[in-house]
Amino acid sequence: DEIRAVARGIVEKEIEKHAADGLGMVDYALSSAGATVVKHSEAYRVGKGKVWFYTANRNEVHHEANMMLRPSFGEPGQCFPLKGNNGFVEIKLRTAVIPEAITLEHVAKSVAYDRSSAPKECRVSGWLEKRDTPEQQMFLLTEFTYDLEKSNAQTFSVLDSVGSGMVNTIRLDVASNHGSASYTCIYRLRVHGREPDSVSLSATQS
Amino acid sequence: DEIRAVARGIVEKEIEKHAADGLGMVDYALSSAGATVVKHSEAYRVGKGKVWFYTANRNEVHHEANMMLRPSFGEPGQCFPLKGNNGFVEIKLRTAVIPEAITLEHVAKSVAYDRSSAPKECRVSGWLEKRDTPEQQMFLLTEFTYDLEKSNAQTFSVLDSVGSGMVNTIRLDVASNHGSASYTCIYRLRVHGREPDSVSLSATQS
Amino acid sequence: DEIRAVARGIVEKEIEKHAADGLGMVDYALSSAGATVVKHSEAYRVGKGKVWFYTANRNEVHHEANMMLRPSFGEPGQCFPLKGNNGFVEIKLRTAVIPEAITLEHVAKSVAYDRSSAPKECRVSGWLEKRDTPEQQMFLLTEFTYDLEKSNAQTFSVLDSVGSGMVNTIRLDVASNHGSASYTCIYRLRVHGREPDSVSLSATQS
Ligand SMILES: [K+]
Ligand SMILES: [K+]
Ligand SMILES: [K+]
Repeated sequence: DEIRAVARGIVEKEIEKHAADGLGMVDYALSSAGATVVKHSEAYRVGKGKVWFYTANRNEVHHEANMMLRPSFGEPGQCFPLKGNNGFVEIKLRTAVIPEAITLEHVAKSVAYDRSSAPKECRVSGWLEKRDTPEQQMFLLTEFTYDLEKSNAQTFSVLDSVGSGMVNTIRLDVASNHGSASYTCIYRLRVHGREPDSVSLSATQS
Repeated sequence: DEIRAVARGIVEKEIEKHAADGLGMVDYALSSAGATVVKHSEAYRVGKGKVWFYTANRNEVHHEANMMLRPSFGEPGQCFPLKGNNGFVEIKLRTAVIPEAITLEHVAKSVAYDRSSAPKECRVSGWLEKRDTPEQQMFLLTEFTYDLEKSNAQTFSVLDSVGSGMVNTIRLDVASNHGSASYTCIYRLRVHGREPDSVSLSATQS
Repeated sequence: DEIRAVARGIVEKEIEKHAADGLGMVDYALSSAGATVVKHSEAYRVGKGKVWFYTANRNEVHHEANMMLRPSFGEPGQCFPLKGNNGFVEIKLRTAVIPEAITLEHVAKSVAYDRSSAPKECRVSGWLEKRDTPEQQMFLLTEFTYDLEKSNAQTFSVLDSVGSGMVNTIRLDVASNHGSASYTCIYRLRVHGREPDSVSLSATQS
């Protein structure tokens, strides 16, 4: 009976975390909460099956780009595919935050047809975009390698050097993927952090 | 090995419940099953990010009102926002039922940006709407306070006084929320109960 | 502490499986991955609530037919309903595979209003559709009875007689359901198997 109670407690905690968007961590890059892709390298045009309409104008944002700012629910195909084995995406966050960690998610191994399109060497940077200030300080948030042998959602801490620097826009640069020459799939990118409270915000601004 | 078997049994049961809409209880207010919002206090117009189109005519039902009759999948923003710190919603159920419990769900604490928009003091009433009968008996189903410290889906039993009274329409009145002056978010409302079987139904009707 | 560690290990494994599309098995009949319904017996027209538009032309594929090739997330109503207590569906898979198992899923007992529309006696066959070859070898993949008392997603092995025969199209024949005279609901059908590797493929083709 004691074992049952212990086991039940652990199960409930883990399911609660799972039900809370898989990680139980606030995500400031969630599209349903106002975040959006603002720029990206050329999108991959999928031929048959799922149709990705080709955007002739490379300056436009692909209408399916925000797919990478939404849950994937364990389904292969729920990603934003960039052309080639490298590329980049820039994301306007829901609001300005002090970034603490970045999560990159790919489809789970057990349900994937092929994972050669998964990003490999990545770098995330961020800055605070303001209307009237053309010069912005850019922070390198983190560099990492997405590992196909680990959990499909991998979280990386932001570098200490960022301190309490604030960002409202981030950029993911994918330098390489896990083998596909034709495209690189981004299932989901999350940005974790904290909003500055009004007191510290005014302190910063003064 | 015995411990493993016990633990596995508990886990499977809990995941089964989680997979069954989170609670494993039939919901007669589910929009994909035919329930629908028929009336509500003024909807909140969200400015940027997620756009809520403003309905000039206050008698119209907001096109996103049924968002509160659908799963939220742990995602902030998957709610129907009412203007101000109080309001109401009327829902036509899938079918007439003898109500047994009401579940009010808000976004989980761990992934929420801010929970001041969560409903606080609530009251749910119901009645059996019939075409040819202008007068309907209204039942007070339950009154409760949504508690931010408890599980994000909170279930409340229907008052004994309702007995085997049947309802096909319910009304949620939110008297206050957890602090937001601008809006009150309703993530999901569920109505649990049982359909009268044909025998008892004819007994009631005779 | 040891018990906790064991329990936690089991929980994490089971949640990982649950998060990976419920079963943690690759599905070649997933619509978001390119599979699609190509033919079916007459669809059921749902009157009120969820509206199913009636297709006058019986040769057309219903615009909601692919609902049966998508996750249902424990929600009643997320199915493709065929008219009557029997029927069939033909599905073009994402790609040609050597089939190994078939999963038929219905809504979970705990959240269902009524499960009399669940398929009962089923038969799945498959073939390799080629453009220039009018004659195709059809394989009987499996025959089974969907059991309302078991788990809502039931997996059946493909018959040994199929060997390493390849299929890119399958047909589900439902001979009977669990009691409904008006319609038969197909929540989800999955096809598990393996893609032939290029070496064995060229061996087969030579
Ligand atoms: K996604
Ligand atoms: K919702
Ligand atoms: K489905």
